[in-house]
Amino acid sequence: MTHFADRLAALVEERRSRVVLGLDPDPAALWPTGRGENAAHGLPAALAAEATVTHCAAAIEAAGPACVAVKLQFACFERLGAPGWTALERVRGTAQAAGLLVIADAKRGDVPVTARAYAQALIGSTPSPFGLIEGFAADAVTANPLLGRDSLEPLIETASSAGAGVFCLVNTSNPGASDLQDLDSAGAPLHERIAEMVNASGAGEVGESGLSLVGAVTGATRPERLGRLRELMPRAVFLLPGVGAQGGDAGALGPVFAPHPAAGLVAASRSIVNAYREVGGDPRAAAAAAAQDLRALTWNQ
Amino acid sequence: MTHFADRLAALVEERRSRVVLGLDPDPAALWPTGRGENAAHGLPAALAAEATVTHCAAAIEAAGPACVAVKLQFACFERLGAPGWTALERVRGTAQAAGLLVIADAKRGDVPVTARAYAQALIGSTPSPFGLIEGFAADAVTANPLLGRDSLEPLIETASSAGAGVFCLVNTSNPGASDLQDLDSAGAPLHERIAEMVNASGAGEVGESGLSLVGAVTGATRPERLGRLRELMPRAVFLLPGVGAQGGDAGALGPVFAPHPAAGLVAASRSIVNAYREVGGDPRAAAAAAAQDLRALTWNQ
Repeated sequence: MTHFADRLAALVEERRSRVVLGLDPDPAALWPTGRGENAAHGLPAALAAEATVTHCAAAIEAAGPACVAVKLQFACFERLGAPGWTALERVRGTAQAAGLLVIADAKRGDVPVTARAYAQALIGSTPSPFGLIEGFAADAVTANPLLGRDSLEPLIETASSAGAGVFCLVNTSNPGASDLQDLDSAGAPLHERIAEMVNASGAGEVGESGLSLVGAVTGATRPERLGRLRELMPRAVFLLPGVGAQGGDAGALGPVFAPHPAAGLVAASRSIVNAYREVGGDPRAAAAAAAQDLRALTWNQ
Repeated sequence: MTHFADRLAALVEERRSRVVLGLDPDPAALWPTGRGENAAHGLPAALAAEATVTHCAAAIEAAGPACVAVKLQFACFERLGAPGWTALERVRGTAQAAGLLVIADAKRGDVPVTARAYAQALIGSTPSPFGLIEGFAADAVTANPLLGRDSLEPLIETASSAGAGVFCLVNTSNPGASDLQDLDSAGAPLHERIAEMVNASGAGEVGESGLSLVGAVTGATRPERLGRLRELMPRAVFLLPGVGAQGGDAGALGPVFAPHPAAGLVAASRSIVNAYREVGGDPRAAAAAAAQDLRALTWNQ
């Protein structure tokens, strides 16, 4: 089983890209191609899920070649109920068939016994008297570290066995992030304490690339912090949301990439998928161009 | 629409109970009645989901009358994929039909735009061109507050409209909780800063009972902290996991209940559902007795 960071490193070098296509589909704002002509019958959730799969597949086909991964926003699928979960699995398969890694952006975090169940759900599998129950088969997951190291360990252990990765929230991209994450914690802001914990959790999980399978979610909206966070987490792959629609500047991310070309991933959702609303024309062409532009901008740093 | 805390208060008074039945089914450890005789055909996940529904319905029938709510551990269902999500919905319906409130223990937390999608998924509904997509219809959800107040607001707003509640993690019951939650944060441990934020978030959401729809998850494993947390959150309903299997003492919870009989809920999962392993005999009888014992112990304080 190849280590997650080494799989990622090879893909980044091959595609010369650090772009992650974020998919957070809103059933009220799908591409026209995603609305489907067969939508005359069925329950709203099932119809919306089918259209969501079509929409996501089109976005992957258009923007995927400029990217190394997709990030699936679980909330957007969960609001479609069981059909949404099936849609998640289908989109996961489409993305992996296109050579992309799949990041389950589910931000789970729970006590160890429950964290193990989440690990089974998202990365591993669940033994049962009915046979082995396969999980979601994500290549990586996002995790909330508020419950401490023991809550991360089941995810990390399962990921290590499966060649998968775990991106822990360190400093998020929303304005309210400062409420807790910036509180002074014994002489440093809390997000730096979280960074220390993430670094410690990932220290034993480093691949041949020198990068750990335990990464960090660090918002691109506060680029002035990235140098310090890189010092605290020298082996972590940074997953950087907030570029584009949330206002982050993709040109200010230099320190992130210093350790390795694959040491930072830039996640963009609406700025790629909804690019056609700005530039007009075909959603696929606009998404392909936006992804390619972001690839070039973030590669040449 | 009746306020969540007032619905809860009425139910607590009527049933003279503060017990929440936690359901975290493991497909490898279901009650014999949950294994089913029709399990000869089908995929493992579908068979496990069907057996899980049977198991949970039996547990609700047995222990439910001594309880006011069930707490569904989403991780345990999500590991069954789409059939697991359908099972969640069926168990939710069974519990509500038995007069119990349903707490979706999903511990979600995300940036505001995504938190709104989780609110649609768990409490509200999602408008779409295919018709309105109904959500899970939980009576309450658990939420992770690491992302700050703006990440909680969509959940609280949606809950307020739906007569539902939001229990925010303040101090969890696992050993690793101390890694971050006990860090000194400008003169107080972080969990007290979280408590202040939770109190502020719930201040405008108080029902006739004097209790807020914004509650707090506070582990029963550290009862010496509950007095201080009560001072900081005088209007919050405390949801107390960790009794029983995790070692919490149900007899040490007095300060929690001071503001109102419904100001504290004691959640027990394995100590009820797996009671038969200790005492022998029929799982249903053992669960009913364990729930009734916990009801009496926590009511007479």
